[in-house]
Amino acid sequence: MRLRSLIPILEWLPRYDRRDLSGDLMAGLIVAVMLVPQGMAYAGLAGLPPEVGLYASILPLVVYGMLGTSRTLAVGPVAIVSLMVASSLAAITESGAVDPVTGAVLLAFLSGAMLMVMGVARLGFLVNFLSHPVISGFSSAAALVIGFSQLKHLLGLDIPRSHHITDTLHSALSQAGQINPWTVALGFGSIGILLSWRGAIPRWLTRAGMSAHLVNPIAKAGPLVAVLVTTLAVWGMRLDISAGVRIVADIPAGLPPLSTPSLDIALIRDLMPAALLIAVVGFLESVSVAKSLASKRRQIIVADQELIALGAANIGASLTGGYPVAGGFGRSLVNFTAGAVTPLAAIITAGLIALTVIVLTPLLYYLPKATLAAIIVVAVAGLIDVKTLRETWAYNKADAASLIATFFAVLFVGVELGIIAGVGLSLALYLWRTSRPHFAVVGRVGETEHYRNVKRHTVTTWPDILAVRVDESLYFANTASLRDTLLAEATARPEIRHLVLIMSAVNFIDASALETLETLSIRLSDAGVTLHFAEVKGPVMDRLDRVGFTTRPGIGTIYLSTHQAITDLRR
Amino acid sequence: MRLRSLIPILEWLPRYDRRDLSGDLMAGLIVAVMLVPQGMAYAGLAGLPPEVGLYASILPLVVYGMLGTSRTLAVGPVAIVSLMVASSLAAITESGAVDPVTGAVLLAFLSGAMLMVMGVARLGFLVNFLSHPVISGFSSAAALVIGFSQLKHLLGLDIPRSHHITDTLHSALSQAGQINPWTVALGFGSIGILLSWRGAIPRWLTRAGMSAHLVNPIAKAGPLVAVLVTTLAVWGMRLDISAGVRIVADIPAGLPPLSTPSLDIALIRDLMPAALLIAVVGFLESVSVAKSLASKRRQIIVADQELIALGAANIGASLTGGYPVAGGFGRSLVNFTAGAVTPLAAIITAGLIALTVIVLTPLLYYLPKATLAAIIVVAVAGLIDVKTLRETWAYNKADAASLIATFFAVLFVGVELGIIAGVGLSLALYLWRTSRPHFAVVGRVGETEHYRNVKRHTVTTWPDILAVRVDESLYFANTASLRDTLLAEATARPEIRHLVLIMSAVNFIDASALETLETLSIRLSDAGVTLHFAEVKGPVMDRLDRVGFTTRPGIGTIYLSTHQAITDLRR
Repeated sequence: MRLRSLIPILEWLPRYDRRDLSGDLMAGLIVAVMLVPQGMAYAGLAGLPPEVGLYASILPLVVYGMLGTSRTLAVGPVAIVSLMVASSLAAITESGAVDPVTGAVLLAFLSGAMLMVMGVARLGFLVNFLSHPVISGFSSAAALVIGFSQLKHLLGLDIPRSHHITDTLHSALSQAGQINPWTVALGFGSIGILLSWRGAIPRWLTRAGMSAHLVNPIAKAGPLVAVLVTTLAVWGMRLDISAGVRIVADIPAGLPPLSTPSLDIALIRDLMPAALLIAVVGFLESVSVAKSLASKRRQIIVADQELIALGAANIGASLTGGYPVAGGFGRSLVNFTAGAVTPLAAIITAGLIALTVIVLTPLLYYLPKATLAAIIVVAVAGLIDVKTLRETWAYNKADAASLIATFFAVLFVGVELGIIAGVGLSLALYLWRTSRPHFAVVGRVGETEHYRNVKRHTVTTWPDILAVRVDESLYFANTASLRDTLLAEATARPEIRHLVLIMSAVNFIDASALETLETLSIRLSDAGVTLHFAEVKGPVMDRLDRVGFTTRPGIGTIYLSTHQAITDLRR
Repeated sequence: MRLRSLIPILEWLPRYDRRDLSGDLMAGLIVAVMLVPQGMAYAGLAGLPPEVGLYASILPLVVYGMLGTSRTLAVGPVAIVSLMVASSLAAITESGAVDPVTGAVLLAFLSGAMLMVMGVARLGFLVNFLSHPVISGFSSAAALVIGFSQLKHLLGLDIPRSHHITDTLHSALSQAGQINPWTVALGFGSIGILLSWRGAIPRWLTRAGMSAHLVNPIAKAGPLVAVLVTTLAVWGMRLDISAGVRIVADIPAGLPPLSTPSLDIALIRDLMPAALLIAVVGFLESVSVAKSLASKRRQIIVADQELIALGAANIGASLTGGYPVAGGFGRSLVNFTAGAVTPLAAIITAGLIALTVIVLTPLLYYLPKATLAAIIVVAVAGLIDVKTLRETWAYNKADAASLIATFFAVLFVGVELGIIAGVGLSLALYLWRTSRPHFAVVGRVGETEHYRNVKRHTVTTWPDILAVRVDESLYFANTASLRDTLLAEATARPEIRHLVLIMSAVNFIDASALETLETLSIRLSDAGVTLHFAEVKGPVMDRLDRVGFTTRPGIGTIYLSTHQAITDLRR
C-alpha cells in the first residue's frame, strides 16, 4: 500500500484497461508532434541549443509517468521556466567561464533536489503563499517578456538578449532597416497557420460535415503543419543561403549520454536562489494544471507526492543533458482532450521523442528559427491575463495593486526579483490589513438576541455598557490599535461602567496581545470600567484558562453569548 | 494650535506652574549626577571616547524637551543603542580608514533623519511589528552581550571586542592569570556600592526613621558614591601607575564645537541599514518608556510627534559631536520618581552636564574604567527578562519559541541580524498560523439559537445539512486549506445537500479566496451540494455584492444568522 502511494505506476499499470490504449496512443502521438518543435523552441528561449529541449522531453516524462499522481499532466520544457532559466544563466555565463548547458543541467539537478526535499519535508503548502493576483501579474509580464524576446527571430534581427522590454524595443526600432522579409514571412506565416488551425479550420471542417473524431486530431496538428510548410519552403528555395534565414541546422543525432551534473560548489551557490524559484514556480504551474484536469474526472492530486515526482523528473532531466521541466498548461490540456487516460500516454510521447532524436533530426535541419518563435509567441499569448486584473480591480483595489506591481516589477526589474517583490508585497498587504482591525460598537436588534454594528443597523444601546466586536485575531501588530481604540472609546464616554469585548471573530490571541489585554484591563479598571468578554472561542478560551487570565484583577465575566452579557450587566 | 502640537514647549512653558519648579530642579540634578558616569560608560560600550557620551547628553535633551510629548522621558545615551552603534561601527572602522567618532556622528544624523521622515510620513505604526516576545528575547540577549563586553574592564584584561560571547569567555579564561586584582576590587566594589545603594541602604535608613523625602535622593546617589569612592581610591594610591588600573584620564574641557556630519556617500550607504535599526529600536524603547510613565499620570504620548522629537534630538547629537540617543528606561524612571513634572527637568540636566563638560572634567581624570563597567553591568542586569519567557512558555509555545530564537540569534549571530531574524520569525509564525485555519462543524445547542462546535458541545445536527464555521479571514495562504477541507467534508458524507459556511469570524475575503469560493461552489454543485453563507459581516458583504458574487450559479442563499439558515433549509 505504502509503496503504491510512493510509486503510483504500481497502482495503475497492473490494472491497466486495454480499452484505454487507443486514447493513450492517440494522445501520446499528438503531444509528441507538438512537443518536438515546442521543446526546441523553449530550449532556444532558455538560451540553450535545441537538442537540450528534446533531451528534457524523454526521461523526465517517463519518471513523472511512474511517480506522478496526475494521470494526464504533460511534463517537459515550459515557457516560464525556460525564461527563468535564461534569466538566471545570463549573469553566470556572461563571462564565458561557464557553458550555458552546464549551468542549465545543474539548475535542473538543484531544482529537482529541492523539490524532492520539499516533498519529503511536506513543504508543499509553501506554494499557497503565492496569491492569485501575484501569479496573474507574473504570468502576464513573463508572457510579454517572452514574446518580446522572440522579436529577433520573427524579424531576423540581432537583438542582444535583455530582460528589459524597453531595451529590446529600442534595439528593434534602431535596426528596423535590416528586417529580413523572408524571415518575417515565415514567422508570421507560421503564426497564421497556428491560429487558423486552432480556430477557423476546425470550424470550417465541422461545418463541412466532418466528424469530431477526425476534426480534433487535425485541429492539434497546427505546429506540425507550420513546421512542415516552413521547413519545406526553406529547403526548396535554399532560403538559409539565398535570403539569410536562420535555421535550426545540425542537431546531434542519438540519445543523450547519461552524465552527472557538474558539482562546482561556487556555481551551486550562485544558482541556488534561482533553482529554488524555478522549483517553486514550476511546481505551482504543474500542480494547478494537474488539479484543474483531475477535478474534471474526480481524481485526486497529492501535492507532496507531486513534489517528489517533479523533483525526480528534474533530476532525470539533469542526468540526460536536459534542463528544468514542469507540467505545461497547453500541452496537458491537449493530452487530456486528445484522450489520454493514464500516464502511459506520456511514456508513449517520451518514446516518440526518443525516436525523433535517434532518426529524425536530419529532417529538422532546415526548420527556420522564425517558426519556433511563432510557436512560442502563440503559446504564451494565452498567458496574458487581463480578465483577472479587471475582476480583481472591481473586487478589491489593494489586491489589484499587488497584481499590477508584480506585473511591472517583472517587466522592469526582472523575472526573479519581480516574483519575490510580488510575494513580499502581497504578504505586506495582508499584514497591513490585519494590523488595522475593524472594531464595531454593537447594539441589540429589536427584541432579538442579535447584536449588530450601530453604524449599519437600527439598534438599542445602553449608557453604561459599551459592547465592541473585535473583527480580527489579536496579535502583536494590532494590539496597539486595540488598546488605543478601546481606551479612546471608554474615555469619550465617561458614563460607561462595563466594556464587553465580543470575541466571535477572534481566532487567536498571541502573547503580545495577551499582555496588552492585561494592561488594558488595569487601565480600564483605574477609570472605573470593568472589562468583560463574550463569545470567546473554545481554542482561545483554553489558552486563556491555562494562564489563569480570567481570574486576574480587573477582568470581569466571560459570557457564552453577547445577549447573556447584556442581560446580566443590565441587572 | 497646530504650532503648539508641533512644538509642545509652546504649550507647557507659558503655563508653567512655579510649584513644579522644586520637583523639576531636584529631578534634573539627580538625573545629571546619574548621567555623567552613565554617558561616559555607554560611550565606552559603543567604542567611543567618554566625552562623546557627555556631548550626547546636552543638546539632545534640550531638543527633546522642546519637541517631545512625554513630560518625563530622559533622553541620552542608552545601553542597547550603544551596543548597536559598536556593532555597526566594528565592520567599518576595522580597516582604520574611518574614525569611530566620525562614524558614530553620522549614525546619529542618519537615524535622526530617518526618524523625522518616518514621523512626517506617519510610519510610527511600523514599530508595532516588533512583538513582545521578540523585544524580550532581544533585550535579554543584548544585556548579556553588553555584560560580557564589560568583563575586560572589570577584570583588567585585554579582551578583543567581539559580539560572540563564546569568544569573549574563551579570551577571558585563557588570560585568567593576568587578572588585575586592584581592578577587580574597584569594579566589584562599585557593583557592591550600586546594589546596596539601591536596596539595603534605603531600607536601613527608612527603618532608622529617616523620612522618604530624604531617603529617595540618597537612594539615587549610588553611582555618584561609587564614582567618588573609586576615583579617590585611585588618586590616593596612584593605582593607575602602581597597579596598572585603567582610568578615564584626559577628557577635553569645554563644550563640543558645532559641526556637520561627514556626508561621504559610500559611508552613508554602508551605515544606512544599521541607522534604520538603531532608529527603530531607539524609538521603540523611548515610546514604551514614555507611554508607561505617561499612563501613570494620564498624559498622552503622540507616537508620530515622538518620531519627530527623537529624530531632532539625534540630529542635535550629530551636530554637537554626540552619538545616537534614545529615551532610557532606568533614567526616565529615576527622573519620574525624583519629581520631574515637566521637560524643564531634562533641560536642567542638560545645563548641569554642560557645566560638567566645561569645568568638572579634571575631577574625572582618575575615575577607573572598572567603575563605569560596574555601572553598565548593574544597569543592564535589569534587562534580563526571564519572567516574560516563563509566562509566554505557559501561554503559547510558538510565541516562546520566537523569544528563544531571537535570544540565541542575537547572542550567536549578531545584534542586527538577530533582531531582523526575530521580526522575520514572528511574522512567519503569524502567517503560518493564519494559513492553517480552524474549521468547526457546528450543531444546534438544545432548542436555543446558538450553534457550537460538535466536538466541544452536545448539539443537534442534520443528515443533509453541513454547517461549518470558518475561524479565519480568507486570504491566499489559506484558500487551499479551505477548499480541501470543505470538499473532504462534503465527499465524506454523500447525503449532504446543503453546506452552510458561517462567516462570523471572517473579516475579509481577498481576491484569491473569492476565486477559490467560486470554484468551490461549482465543484460542490457538481456533487449536488448547494453552498450557502450565514453571518457575513457588513464590510465583507459589501465587497461580495460589488462583484455580484451572490447571484452566481451554485451560490445558494446568504442568511443573516445560522439559525435562520438551518430553519429555512430544514423546511
